[in-house]
Amino acid sequence: MTDPLTSPPVDVDGANAALLDAMIDARPHLVGTARAGDVIPALDDGVLLHAGPPLEPSELSGPSAGALAGALVYEGRARDVEAATRLLNDGAVPIESTHSHGIVGPMTGVVSASMPVFVLNDPVSGLETYVTINEGLGSVLRFGANSPAVIARLAWIAEVAAPVLDRALREHGPIDLVGVQREALIRGDECHNRNKAATAQFVRLIAADIARTAPDGSTAASVLDFVSGNDHFFLNLSMSACKLAAEVASADPRAIGSTIVTTIASNGVRLGIRVGAGAQWWTAPAPLPHEARWLDGHSRDDAAPLVGDSFATEVAGLGAFAAAGAPAISAYVGGTVADLLAITDRMYGITAREHATYLIPHLDYRGTPVGIDVRAVAATGVAPVVNAGFAGRIAGTGQVGAGVVTLPIEPFLAAAGTPEVGP
Amino acid sequence: MTDPLTSPPVDVDGANAALLDAMIDARPHLVGTARAGDVIPALDDGVLLHAGPPLEPSELSGPSAGALAGALVYEGRARDVEAATRLLNDGAVPIESTHSHGIVGPMTGVVSASMPVFVLNDPVSGLETYVTINEGLGSVLRFGANSPAVIARLAWIAEVAAPVLDRALREHGPIDLVGVQREALIRGDECHNRNKAATAQFVRLIAADIARTAPDGSTAASVLDFVSGNDHFFLNLSMSACKLAAEVASADPRAIGSTIVTTIASNGVRLGIRVGAGAQWWTAPAPLPHEARWLDGHSRDDAAPLVGDSFATEVAGLGAFAAAGAPAISAYVGGTVADLLAITDRMYGITAREHATYLIPHLDYRGTPVGIDVRAVAATGVAPVVNAGFAGRIAGTGQVGAGVVTLPIEPFLAAAGTPEVGP
Repeated sequence: MTDPLTSPPVDVDGANAALLDAMIDARPHLVGTARAGDVIPALDDGVLLHAGPPLEPSELSGPSAGALAGALVYEGRARDVEAATRLLNDGAVPIESTHSHGIVGPMTGVVSASMPVFVLNDPVSGLETYVTINEGLGSVLRFGANSPAVIARLAWIAEVAAPVLDRALREHGPIDLVGVQREALIRGDECHNRNKAATAQFVRLIAADIARTAPDGSTAASVLDFVSGNDHFFLNLSMSACKLAAEVASADPRAIGSTIVTTIASNGVRLGIRVGAGAQWWTAPAPLPHEARWLDGHSRDDAAPLVGDSFATEVAGLGAFAAAGAPAISAYVGGTVADLLAITDRMYGITAREHATYLIPHLDYRGTPVGIDVRAVAATGVAPVVNAGFAGRIAGTGQVGAGVVTLPIEPFLAAAGTPEVGP
Repeated sequence: MTDPLTSPPVDVDGANAALLDAMIDARPHLVGTARAGDVIPALDDGVLLHAGPPLEPSELSGPSAGALAGALVYEGRARDVEAATRLLNDGAVPIESTHSHGIVGPMTGVVSASMPVFVLNDPVSGLETYVTINEGLGSVLRFGANSPAVIARLAWIAEVAAPVLDRALREHGPIDLVGVQREALIRGDECHNRNKAATAQFVRLIAADIARTAPDGSTAASVLDFVSGNDHFFLNLSMSACKLAAEVASADPRAIGSTIVTTIASNGVRLGIRVGAGAQWWTAPAPLPHEARWLDGHSRDDAAPLVGDSFATEVAGLGAFAAAGAPAISAYVGGTVADLLAITDRMYGITAREHATYLIPHLDYRGTPVGIDVRAVAATGVAPVVNAGFAGRIAGTGQVGAGVVTLPIEPFLAAAGTPEVGP
């Protein structure tokens, strides 16, 4: 694989333009669901996936260890969480990065063979990606919870919800996820930490097909309750659509030599980025939140370092980059409307393009800032900002807060080959 | 009935405050559906209702005549539209204003006995109101269309959709319409000419209950397709919720002497307003649109004068008054985002209150301007602005456009007892 930074091409700007054309023109569609092991073969060999750059089992954070242990119980590979934890500690379970398989996962990002996944397809490139079905809020695997109730919900999703959603999606035909995101942004979602409008629109698109194809009304109702009852149901679809756009972009041969960021993700220990067509990770210690809204009496002391792949949305020009279009996110992540406008404004300074499809009405339909150029980060000293949910430090706690995080600048400087901030 | 303007009370400001407290604190809930004649007894005596202030059958505009004729065919009171038109022309059909029955209707506002209506209840006051179920877009009765397809759709709504919606609503429990409007405004609807987010949220709230209680999956799917397929489905619920708040306000005995507008409505010939606790109408000729977006090659020449009761939304602080919160409405009614901000800003100058529940995120969660004070209109010379759809001048044409209308100021001046604009 060519490393664009050690063997610079003549035309970085041209490579960046090609990469961004591909990213912005990608049109991921949701086509159905599948069993994860059927579409990601390594899972049937016993591999479990985790969010962020690769890490060793011995390095696992509390939430990630909790989620992986829960997945082993769910798969029937361990009798209980204690036994699963021993297996993990013994290094008996191979774990790999979601990104090694071209997918993303929210928070700990754990995926195992028997989990159902949504199937996304980009009709332009023919590339596919996959993402788990959002479990809901409260005590859930992706935040590291692994109680019997969490495992039972995963089983219900696989046995009841996924087949119903699959039949409804096949009946409906492919859903243009970028179109849903575009309209959701007009409706005040930034499609990362706020997914209310997109979730409602997804229900609107699919409800009749669920009613039409479910085995009976009671089953249809249970699945509609499950989807409708979760303000973040669309999150997994949003981040996965953004991931597929980034995959399409980095797979474009004209993108070799590009300095545009294609991945931002954290495994809970290290935050890493990837750039252009390259597979190389540049990392820094996963940051702790500095400002956030805390849930249920929790505080910063309870939070685990940043974890998750959902910063795929910021890579694609959504999330914190679209904060100006989502004033209501301030109720979730803190800050004022002026703060949100300032974030988007700052991100225009480190990005190469304004998105052609994601528009912000209150900025007179200006496109969101997209395409973080590590050269611009190095030149300005402005680090990218992301929205984030925070897991509890102790396995099984679940979510403790949400907020805005300015990322460590070091990986961007390293990728730019410029260790010092200038000018 | 006391006329607040010919026998002024000592404390107009107190009456205004009481009226607005009642209007803003009202909490209309959607509880189910009913047959119109069962809840509005005059309809079973043969009366048909029309939007706006009272008018004579001989005065009917093209769209209103078309809709009333369609209703007579739908009711089986005429063999065809020609026969129905003769009945109307002969003065053989009693017609009354929706407002004489405490309700509103979109566009021509026609209601007849066999039509199903949504039932709205305000749990604080115990008052109820009713509104027809939005038929969808294109060729529809409310715009004056009356073809066999239009009548067949009305029959399907009565026989299939309304019973399914009623069962689902009873299963769901009362839906807080003000809560839906509040959130829809955060999602960029002004809840008059833009109802996309509210419609999606309504589907999200009710889909599972439809699936759970419909006679079969195919019927559930047909009703969900009907609701989901219409971006304006929520309009009738929105305007009716606003009407109920106004009814609660004008029924408050402390509101006697108030100078706050409680009704703005047009019958297609005369636009009328009512003020405070009074039932008196002040009218002016219904205006033609001066700026609008025209559909399907239509132009201003094709448009009928303003008609409808949907300006109940502006009375309650939504519609054009909330334009600053709905930048995407510019794609429907024309103008720029700056124009929309200017409209809301101007309306603050003629209103007595900022709404406690309807908030505009991009104005740092400032409440929408609510409570048009005819004294302020007279003092400033600023006339209220409304959003509006426009029917074709010729009966049966349907919708020809949508736009923003500055209302004729004369009724407001007359109500204020101040024929000259000052200062």
